[in-house]
Amino acid sequence: MKRFMTECMVKVGSNPDHAQQLADLLTYADQRGHYSHGVNRLHIYVRDVKVNATTGDGTPKILKQKGCTAWVDGQNLLGVVVGNFCTDLAIKLAKEHGVGWVVANGSNHFGAAGYYSTRCAAEGLVGMSFTNASPTTFPTRAGEKGIGNNPLSFIAEGENGDGFALDMACSTVAYGKVEVERRLGHKTIPNSWGVDSNGHETTDPEAVVNGGGLTPLGGHEATGGYKGSGIAMMVEIICGVLGGAAIGKNIRNWQNTTVIANLGQCFVAVDPECFADGFHHRLQKFIDETRGLKPADPKLPVLVAGDPERAFIKKSQENGGLVYPSTYVGNLNDLANELGIKPCHFDKIH
Amino acid sequence: MKRFMTECMVKVGSNPDHAQQLADLLTYADQRGHYSHGVNRLHIYVRDVKVNATTGDGTPKILKQKGCTAWVDGQNLLGVVVGNFCTDLAIKLAKEHGVGWVVANGSNHFGAAGYYSTRCAAEGLVGMSFTNASPTTFPTRAGEKGIGNNPLSFIAEGENGDGFALDMACSTVAYGKVEVERRLGHKTIPNSWGVDSNGHETTDPEAVVNGGGLTPLGGHEATGGYKGSGIAMMVEIICGVLGGAAIGKNIRNWQNTTVIANLGQCFVAVDPECFADGFHHRLQKFIDETRGLKPADPKLPVLVAGDPERAFIKKSQENGGLVYPSTYVGNLNDLANELGIKPCHFDKIH
Repeated sequence: MKRFMTECMVKVGSNPDHAQQLADLLTYADQRGHYSHGVNRLHIYVRDVKVNATTGDGTPKILKQKGCTAWVDGQNLLGVVVGNFCTDLAIKLAKEHGVGWVVANGSNHFGAAGYYSTRCAAEGLVGMSFTNASPTTFPTRAGEKGIGNNPLSFIAEGENGDGFALDMACSTVAYGKVEVERRLGHKTIPNSWGVDSNGHETTDPEAVVNGGGLTPLGGHEATGGYKGSGIAMMVEIICGVLGGAAIGKNIRNWQNTTVIANLGQCFVAVDPECFADGFHHRLQKFIDETRGLKPADPKLPVLVAGDPERAFIKKSQENGGLVYPSTYVGNLNDLANELGIKPCHFDKIH
Repeated sequence: MKRFMTECMVKVGSNPDHAQQLADLLTYADQRGHYSHGVNRLHIYVRDVKVNATTGDGTPKILKQKGCTAWVDGQNLLGVVVGNFCTDLAIKLAKEHGVGWVVANGSNHFGAAGYYSTRCAAEGLVGMSFTNASPTTFPTRAGEKGIGNNPLSFIAEGENGDGFALDMACSTVAYGKVEVERRLGHKTIPNSWGVDSNGHETTDPEAVVNGGGLTPLGGHEATGGYKGSGIAMMVEIICGVLGGAAIGKNIRNWQNTTVIANLGQCFVAVDPECFADGFHHRLQKFIDETRGLKPADPKLPVLVAGDPERAFIKKSQENGGLVYPSTYVGNLNDLANELGIKPCHFDKIH
């Protein structure tokens, strides 16, 4: 799969190293069952580089550096290239100063936020990453889209390969989840997921998809949506506002390639050795104690952030590699034909 | 009011400077209409110092310092004393290194989280503060309390005294809000607020108060509660776990004075000058654009975090000082009598 992804990107003009970084990012998501952030999105990155909405070759540029901070111009490169550059820098700064805090502008969609934080965690650090995003979400009380779903991630290792891995958008759910319910023919979705085109809460997936939008985490004002709005704005402030990137409703619409994205992103690494000794042990104990809480429903054990992804990785490994819905085969073969690339090899197709 | 608060605290053994710090913290909350974090809580701080559950005199101690970080032992002093000590340090470190990241253990309830971040913001910095708390919240899927509502704050100035001020707990609502509905005789509360003693979502305020508890932001699993659980755990990790303080369900129950609280708290200051020039102007534009979004209901304009508090401060100023519910007069006079302190002076009692 990585060979296929890399060849697709190189074919449209990506630097081969950038293409490999993207392949690693997308398989990270697919391995965890987050198909919305995996090869499913490859054709979008391909198109963006092909039409020069994303720059295929170059290096991000450090614009300012002071103490434990850096401000980076992403040079409109692939989000993963900017993300890895900033993450490397944040790790280096954290090892020197205890914290590394790097903010980029001029970036593009960086895929699964957790990818960068996982790289920090693998160095024994606490990793965080944040990005702004195309407007999809109606802030509390708004009758129009005003902000992206602005993902954040926070990841740290416990013991024996275990850990805590939060990777979430600030909307209650992703657009994709509403789409899935709609395609399944479901007439209602849970409350707190979305609003209609006037900003009124709705449980009709058609209304959300046709001119409506997502609700910030918490849903309506009475159920805490203003807190989700606040967190989404916080992410925007440390990304777009600190970075001097596009901000809020001024960010280009999703899949628009006539203007550059100019996304803002923030990468933070913290060295737990600067605080109380034994961080990883205490974190593991906290994780274990949380999982060990009496469940409300005996069939549904209490999980911590990262557990569903860990279970999916295990499933992928038991299957000897990446596992995809069979509908992917046709789409990927089409892309291979279009670009003149050798198709992916699938071991088994059910 | 400050005179009264200070005298109460000194009477039970607080260092006068600590008492003044507490008075400033509590009036900060009352001025903003957050009575739950104001003088309403004075009797608890008084009792904690009186019975030596909180230490009345001393200085927090820096245990480690490296680069832009510091680890602090709060020496079981008042939360505000620990919070101010750590905030001063975070501001100093941020000015030197771009970021200051200070974590304390051995602390106590520090009041309104926004107080500390507001102090950072007044220095032109982005201020954040976080604290763990006594267990009140059922993590998603849990049939028992497993975590506190773990407040976080994020505050930065825009232009002309305006700004963004997020100060929130990670539960959908505070216990107090459920209590208020119950005392008003309301038989139902909105979904997503709380669970019964088995961890099942309920709209019955009696069930929440009698053995049940709060729901993380997002409510039930289907409406995103696992994200709120994740954010609450994130706060716990940068407070209790990084700081080596009490953690999660091991934190003493609220109002228990037989063991010390040993809370963990985290204070972060970031200097926006390290990134793109013109931060405060861009932030103001983002705030203005968000407020200017078309409202879903013309009678309810879109607000940004901090707007309700700003409106309340204006109301306090128009009234020439702090404004309290008239029921407070009796309680404060009782406390004055109990401690042999001159009562507060109220200009008008309606």
